[in-house]
Amino acid sequence: DSNDSPRTITLIPGDGIGPEISNSVQKIFEAAEVPISWESVDVTPVKSPDGKFRIPLRAIESVTKNRIGLKGPLATPVGKGHQSLNLALRKQFNLFANVRPCKTLEGYKTPYDNVDLVTIRENTEGEYSGIEHTIVPGVVQSIKLITEHASLRVSEYAFLYAKLHKREKVTVVHKANIMRLSDGLFLKSARQVAEKYPEIKFEEMYLDTVCLKMVQDPTQFDCLVMPNLYGDILSDLCAGLIGGLGLTPSGNIGENGAAIFEAVHGTAPDIAGQDKANPTALLLSSVMMLRHLHMFDKADRIEKACFDTIKDGKVLTGDLGGKSKCSEYTSEICRRIKDSS
Amino acid sequence: DSNDSPRTITLIPGDGIGPEISNSVQKIFEAAEVPISWESVDVTPVKSPDGKFRIPLRAIESVTKNRIGLKGPLATPVGKGHQSLNLALRKQFNLFANVRPCKTLEGYKTPYDNVDLVTIRENTEGEYSGIEHTIVPGVVQSIKLITEHASLRVSEYAFLYAKLHKREKVTVVHKANIMRLSDGLFLKSARQVAEKYPEIKFEEMYLDTVCLKMVQDPTQFDCLVMPNLYGDILSDLCAGLIGGLGLTPSGNIGENGAAIFEAVHGTAPDIAGQDKANPTALLLSSVMMLRHLHMFDKADRIEKACFDTIKDGKVLTGDLGGKSKCSEYTSEICRRIKDSS
Ligand SMILES: CC(C)[C@H](C(=O)O)[C@@H](O)C(=O)O
Ligand SMILES: CC(C)[C@H](C(=O)O)[C@@H](O)C(=O)O
Repeated sequence: DSNDSPRTITLIPGDGIGPEISNSVQKIFEAAEVPISWESVDVTPVKSPDGKFRIPLRAIESVTKNRIGLKGPLATPVGKGHQSLNLALRKQFNLFANVRPCKTLEGYKTPYDNVDLVTIRENTEGEYSGIEHTIVPGVVQSIKLITEHASLRVSEYAFLYAKLHKREKVTVVHKANIMRLSDGLFLKSARQVAEKYPEIKFEEMYLDTVCLKMVQDPTQFDCLVMPNLYGDILSDLCAGLIGGLGLTPSGNIGENGAAIFEAVHGTAPDIAGQDKANPTALLLSSVMMLRHLHMFDKADRIEKACFDTIKDGKVLTGDLGGKSKCSEYTSEICRRIKDSS
Repeated sequence: DSNDSPRTITLIPGDGIGPEISNSVQKIFEAAEVPISWESVDVTPVKSPDGKFRIPLRAIESVTKNRIGLKGPLATPVGKGHQSLNLALRKQFNLFANVRPCKTLEGYKTPYDNVDLVTIRENTEGEYSGIEHTIVPGVVQSIKLITEHASLRVSEYAFLYAKLHKREKVTVVHKANIMRLSDGLFLKSARQVAEKYPEIKFEEMYLDTVCLKMVQDPTQFDCLVMPNLYGDILSDLCAGLIGGLGLTPSGNIGENGAAIFEAVHGTAPDIAGQDKANPTALLLSSVMMLRHLHMFDKADRIEKACFDTIKDGKVLTGDLGGKSKCSEYTSEICRRIKDSS
């Protein structure tokens, strides 16, 4: 690889099973001799002098300096009045595109074969603006905010991604029949960008229709670009088609190459610390990260070892239908990497 | 049946294949000797003196008088600046709950078996408020409006429906982790109603999680209640699981028993007038209508004849994998109804 120079990456191990699966990725990177060093940080919010909870400065400085992070699952306090930490990170670093590839894993049986698609989600605004008001008691409004700037930006990314990854089609997902102005602006922006990429097919589809067609035949889709909430929904739906969040990687892409790659499954507190967790989602996220860093060769080798382990089916964690521990699954992947060199 | 007295129903045949499938339903009702008479109306908007397009007065008067309507698909002008006619009808008659049962049809092969669930969608507000503004060029907001009144009302309906139809569970679908105030209010309202129905299980789930679990195992769901847009999405997703919008009925329920039952598929202009259309969605919607009118016996007989025809598989329309015409499929259902009496 051209970029095989040492590089520091911020590691956010996260909560629950986070540390175990992060450890697994680190071991696998060692086995593959990936030339990076990890800078591990804790992002648990700390109380600022003004009484608000904030991400620790050290974590912010680390990501700002390294520009690339790998992140395990974080516990989200629900209804505690403060924002999800996952969202706080996306906003803090202006990570505007959330990219989630979904590809059928050979050997892992689901009703769907040959799924190979990528959802690209606007990650900074839309229904996630956080702007809400109680007008009078019992009457509430939430504001969905769509800007041309962010809409063009995520569409640009989607087409660039499609081009780089030799994909054939981008589908823009919308409800401009209902939200004529907001989704209308998103749609118009996508159309505008599409014109610059005549070599990539462009398709427009209502969100409800996409959901219906997705469960009937996901192979008709390729890249999909959409506002924030629609991406939240569709990425989970698609993950369900290939086996769930334990198997699907995710990347949050920012300006000038900054990015945080993350496992989007939960912290699984019930099995934390028992060497039972499945590190696949975080590992495949780290593979996305390597490709983002142009370390294609390392990425391919790690990915192949992971896919082959699943296909082989002899050393799998419980959620994958096996009886092996996280550490055994990890060792098996390391063994295959070493054998392949 | 107790209510076997003649009753007038407003029929909105609709556009494209609408008239053919409406005709099919009328024939089947005749065969089943359903004691109703039809009042057919056109809802194509006409220009009012003020220059705006409005639903013709005759149509409004008919539905207002009869309180019950059956409706075929309507052509929706996209991006023409005026509201979807489907939505206009829902608003005009304050049809606050959209009910869409999804049940596996024996004989119609999909990757999912034993699906039997009902989505109940708030039908008057939420993301469909129609309130949007351009703040400055390139910055748009759409308002999602949630009221306690409408949230309680649709939850009440969901639990009542569950009770009447001997269903075990109601799942409230939300994103209150993101839209804390608006979805928070919807969630709170559902919780409040749930307390009055201790005999029905109550479950809360994030929309993204519902989508993921739905494609992995839809049999875990029973009744689901949710804000407007989430219902739009989930009802289509669920329809996809059992074979698409050509097979799924829908009812829009208003105050004091007013209701419009409708096929929610498109107008299929490409096959209109060729006797190729599949009337199943409209027929099953009319079966919902009969149950709403407490004509349970007629409903059961028509439904059974339809299900048996599909299960038997010999006389099916093209979209169902057969080679028969709409009129032949209709006659087959009529024959089975007559044989069963
Ligand atoms: C944890 C939650 C706030 C988040 C979201 O809604 O975006 C999650 O569902 C995701 O998709 O990353
Ligand atoms: C036709 C369209 C306006 C409508 C909606 O978005 O509600 C449709 O998708 C539906 O579900 O009935």
